[in-house]
Amino acid sequence: MNQTAARFALYSYWRTSATYRVRVALNLKKLASEEINVDIDKNEQREPAFLAINPLGAIPALIDRAPGASSLPITQSLAILEFLEEIEPDPALLPADPWARARVRALAGMMATDTHPLITPRIKKYLTAAGGFDDAKWRAWQTNWFSTGLGAYEECLTKQPGSGRYSQGDSITIADICLASVMVVARVFKIEVTNIPTIDRIMADLESLPEFARADPRRQAGAPAAA
Amino acid sequence: MNQTAARFALYSYWRTSATYRVRVALNLKKLASEEINVDIDKNEQREPAFLAINPLGAIPALIDRAPGASSLPITQSLAILEFLEEIEPDPALLPADPWARARVRALAGMMATDTHPLITPRIKKYLTAAGGFDDAKWRAWQTNWFSTGLGAYEECLTKQPGSGRYSQGDSITIADICLASVMVVARVFKIEVTNIPTIDRIMADLESLPEFARADPRRQAGAPAAA
Repeated sequence: MNQTAARFALYSYWRTSATYRVRVALNLKKLASEEINVDIDKNEQREPAFLAINPLGAIPALIDRAPGASSLPITQSLAILEFLEEIEPDPALLPADPWARARVRALAGMMATDTHPLITPRIKKYLTAAGGFDDAKWRAWQTNWFSTGLGAYEECLTKQPGSGRYSQGDSITIADICLASVMVVARVFKIEVTNIPTIDRIMADLESLPEFARADPRRQAGAPAAA
Repeated sequence: MNQTAARFALYSYWRTSATYRVRVALNLKKLASEEINVDIDKNEQREPAFLAINPLGAIPALIDRAPGASSLPITQSLAILEFLEEIEPDPALLPADPWARARVRALAGMMATDTHPLITPRIKKYLTAAGGFDDAKWRAWQTNWFSTGLGAYEECLTKQPGSGRYSQGDSITIADICLASVMVVARVFKIEVTNIPTIDRIMADLESLPEFARADPRRQAGAPAAA
């Protein structure tokens, strides 16, 4: 990638689930971005320079450098995915039918709204400091919410009309991106969730694609060397 | 409202923040719904009858009874808001400009994704059972996340271009709906967040409107009598 030509700047960190979602969408839509590292293990997301980008102190944040674009950083991964879908509709990451779109957004929300926010660094920090959680209790917490969210997602895939090769039909949608974003982070934290065969099948399919493989946390700058 | 004529059925409970969002959007768009009570204080959301509606066991869930509509319940409040916007664009709850839409969705996500999921009944249940939280620790947890989310939202309102009479410009958007949904629930739980004057001003404005006032948790069936 010629970074000087990149339309977008993406504030990111190698292992975060929400950044992964944006990386995949940019890859699928063939949009170039330059990643700017925010080391959340060093708490850089709480420093004034980054709080000016996002007062909530969370990554990702996307800056659109296109002529005429707003200079305001776009935060919240779901907002970024919807934005990318609007400015670059090809390939579509949402189906055309409004009820199918709603199912895709609901599945995405099960991961991005009701699962991932519970296992972020700020939650770990609170629970281990003020909450008195030791490593075992934190791990049980992580396992509980990964299992709850992924188990419910699996049920949607097996019981609801609409499922296909991917979460909704035979095309990749933002639901698949959010699903994969939780799965790759579960792997980073070595959390194993069992009895999700449909998810495992979709995940293997997605990870065979270069747009997902290139976004993998383990392949990003700053990731620890492979074991 | 003539309930036999209602297009939508809404699985709801009087005090939930996510249901409130849908209620307000339906009111603003003048769409009729029949509410079906799911008593989360009696854990009805975990019973098989409701898990068939939403495998995650969360309300709201919206059923569209229009001819030709999918019979699949729509879950996740943000997915429902987007759906309602697509099928009934008037009044618009998202601006037209893609960068402004992104800001609105990001603000909505700060509330609906990064604040509210942390203080739901299932989190309380986990923290008080497995986590060893007593009432004081639970209250400190609630206060911390309400303050973090609302404080960051206030900063966005005061520091970012785009703010107006409401969160984005002078029209009500889904950001305002999500903001109000967190504010009303903070009130139900008697959590006071200070130093958010811009939010307080917008909230007073919103609550003067019948579409918001009618959605207030305290005015719903099943709410405890006013003190």
